[in-house]
Amino acid sequence: MTTPFPIRPRLLLGPGPSPVADRVLEALSRPTVGHLDPQFLAVMDDVNERLRRTFGTSNALTFPVSGTGSAAQEAALANVVEPGDKVVIGVNGVFGGRLAEMARRMGCDVVTVEEEWGRVFSPDRLIEVLGRHPDARVLAVVHAETSTGAWQPLEDLGTYVSGTDTLFLVDTVTSLGGVPVEVDRNRIDVAYSGTQKCLGVPPGLAPLTFSHRAMARIRSRRQPCQSWYLDAALLAAYVGEGSERRYHHTAPINMMYALHEGLVAVEEEGLEARYGRHLDVGRRLQAELVERGFELFAQEGHRLPQLTAAALPGGRDEAPLRRALLDRFDIEVGGGLGPAKGRIWRVGLMGAGATHENVDRLLAAIDELLD
Amino acid sequence: MTTPFPIRPRLLLGPGPSPVADRVLEALSRPTVGHLDPQFLAVMDDVNERLRRTFGTSNALTFPVSGTGSAAQEAALANVVEPGDKVVIGVNGVFGGRLAEMARRMGCDVVTVEEEWGRVFSPDRLIEVLGRHPDARVLAVVHAETSTGAWQPLEDLGTYVSGTDTLFLVDTVTSLGGVPVEVDRNRIDVAYSGTQKCLGVPPGLAPLTFSHRAMARIRSRRQPCQSWYLDAALLAAYVGEGSERRYHHTAPINMMYALHEGLVAVEEEGLEARYGRHLDVGRRLQAELVERGFELFAQEGHRLPQLTAAALPGGRDEAPLRRALLDRFDIEVGGGLGPAKGRIWRVGLMGAGATHENVDRLLAAIDELLD
Repeated sequence: MTTPFPIRPRLLLGPGPSPVADRVLEALSRPTVGHLDPQFLAVMDDVNERLRRTFGTSNALTFPVSGTGSAAQEAALANVVEPGDKVVIGVNGVFGGRLAEMARRMGCDVVTVEEEWGRVFSPDRLIEVLGRHPDARVLAVVHAETSTGAWQPLEDLGTYVSGTDTLFLVDTVTSLGGVPVEVDRNRIDVAYSGTQKCLGVPPGLAPLTFSHRAMARIRSRRQPCQSWYLDAALLAAYVGEGSERRYHHTAPINMMYALHEGLVAVEEEGLEARYGRHLDVGRRLQAELVERGFELFAQEGHRLPQLTAAALPGGRDEAPLRRALLDRFDIEVGGGLGPAKGRIWRVGLMGAGATHENVDRLLAAIDELLD
Repeated sequence: MTTPFPIRPRLLLGPGPSPVADRVLEALSRPTVGHLDPQFLAVMDDVNERLRRTFGTSNALTFPVSGTGSAAQEAALANVVEPGDKVVIGVNGVFGGRLAEMARRMGCDVVTVEEEWGRVFSPDRLIEVLGRHPDARVLAVVHAETSTGAWQPLEDLGTYVSGTDTLFLVDTVTSLGGVPVEVDRNRIDVAYSGTQKCLGVPPGLAPLTFSHRAMARIRSRRQPCQSWYLDAALLAAYVGEGSERRYHHTAPINMMYALHEGLVAVEEEGLEARYGRHLDVGRRLQAELVERGFELFAQEGHRLPQLTAAALPGGRDEAPLRRALLDRFDIEVGGGLGPAKGRIWRVGLMGAGATHENVDRLLAAIDELLD
């Protein structure tokens, strides 16, 4: 009866989605049950507990939003701001810019701090800005800027902000499961991610966590969250481990099975081993690309191992080569965005994709294409 | 390597999710590819074309939102209203109430028209209200009220509203694929649905369509949509069939495969045959329940075949029997919501679940439980 449409497998070495292990695809296709079935609630509780360990947090409200990373990004902001609130946002790539755009749409007074794409913010600079804006309700930065490969240090910012009334909101879409996020240690108040990056799960859910400080902010709102779908106060009654589960919306059941399996795989490997693997494989790719004349885009000393942005040798036009890589070798890498459009590739070695074998396969293809 | 968590299959005869055919689960687990991969874009284009035929529309912007039904509900409203806009909303169950709540959060001037739960609105009554509110920007009703089983007539409302500046917004979450929606014939401007009801696909995507009139409203907005994630103007640049696909967010790739397969199954059966099957099976269930002393909750002449709400015989407490049905027979039905809580069951015969065999299995279990 099935009418198949052929999907030719690709080696996913772009900025996401990353390769999905067979065990995760198998979990995805388990029998669909109801969103209030005790079996499903048990899976969801276990997902939330595993997410806490992966985020490095004891935050009670830690759960996957029923959407992709941008839905969690919007949920993160929308729950802790109200119209007129001042927010300070570091913009050094697409995703910081998106945070600012979302905050503007929410009616916030947005103070953007700009940095050259590819560079990170010195904590001192952002702390200086916050000193001039002590009424800022939120400081938002991107931990792993997927558009540039820059790896933002968090610790000093978290320490500073925790002594103020400002909440610390961090985009960890491309970092969770690939490099340490450490929500509690870094004193992050709101962090969100996606499933399709270093967790190695298809897109469709998006982890989100709120600290006690963030929850206090949510509980003392003057008006409800602009979004009913993303309202953390309503979601807490469904995802929370309280006595009665109050129906809110129908969760993506099968995606939850897949995320569960992905998180089991993360913990079987162990977080430290997983970070080590990403670091090892990513650093090797970067060295090999430099050797071939690629120019790394992100600031030295602050390069993500799992996402490498690099300009092609000799100023070559990236698009035809990227298309040839896909068509002839079935390898997907990403192109540049914004000011980096047309100049760079973005190569992801994330989740199950972060292997030396994949680096070998990519380098062999590059050598043939650039020959 | 897999750490299985056992999922015991259930017969899903609740208000959704509905049973998922093996062919759809198989599609769900096909290899994940990138959201800009030409292979994926072809699947998405075909999904959108199939959704047009299922909705009964030629609307260019017809696509699945990356979330569940409530995300599409929020997207439907948020794109066509601005703060201060007057909206008239028919509330005769949970989902009309949710529309009103969402509109209030969007800063609208909300005029609710209430009807007893289980009853439908007479078109004349809503038209009379609109006559008193000619400045209403939107009239919103629920086609298939999942909380009561009521089936709202649309045609007269659509005809009236099409001659005014008011847009006609309709919740078709539980109707699409089960009973005729006919967006163009009924002159609906905005309709949204879910995948996990009569389409027989797991939850995680939510079909949405905007008419020309709705698109003109969207293009003439004074300020952008409050939600970046759900902004139809931005989404059109990715899902549209224009020349360049602009990256917006990472779509739920595997869920799109599943929706594609579900829509192929819908068209293999044929829409008319599918509506006939739902009607036939649903009417039989309703007759059999009445014979057993159940009292049908929705107004006679306006009962959905695919979702039957019924009070248990002799005023029995529904919850323990519903739990026994799940635990002893692996059959899921839904309980009541709001004023109907504790009194009724909601039985869905939707998508692949709408079979006489399932009616037999449910009735046999009921006969044993009520004996």
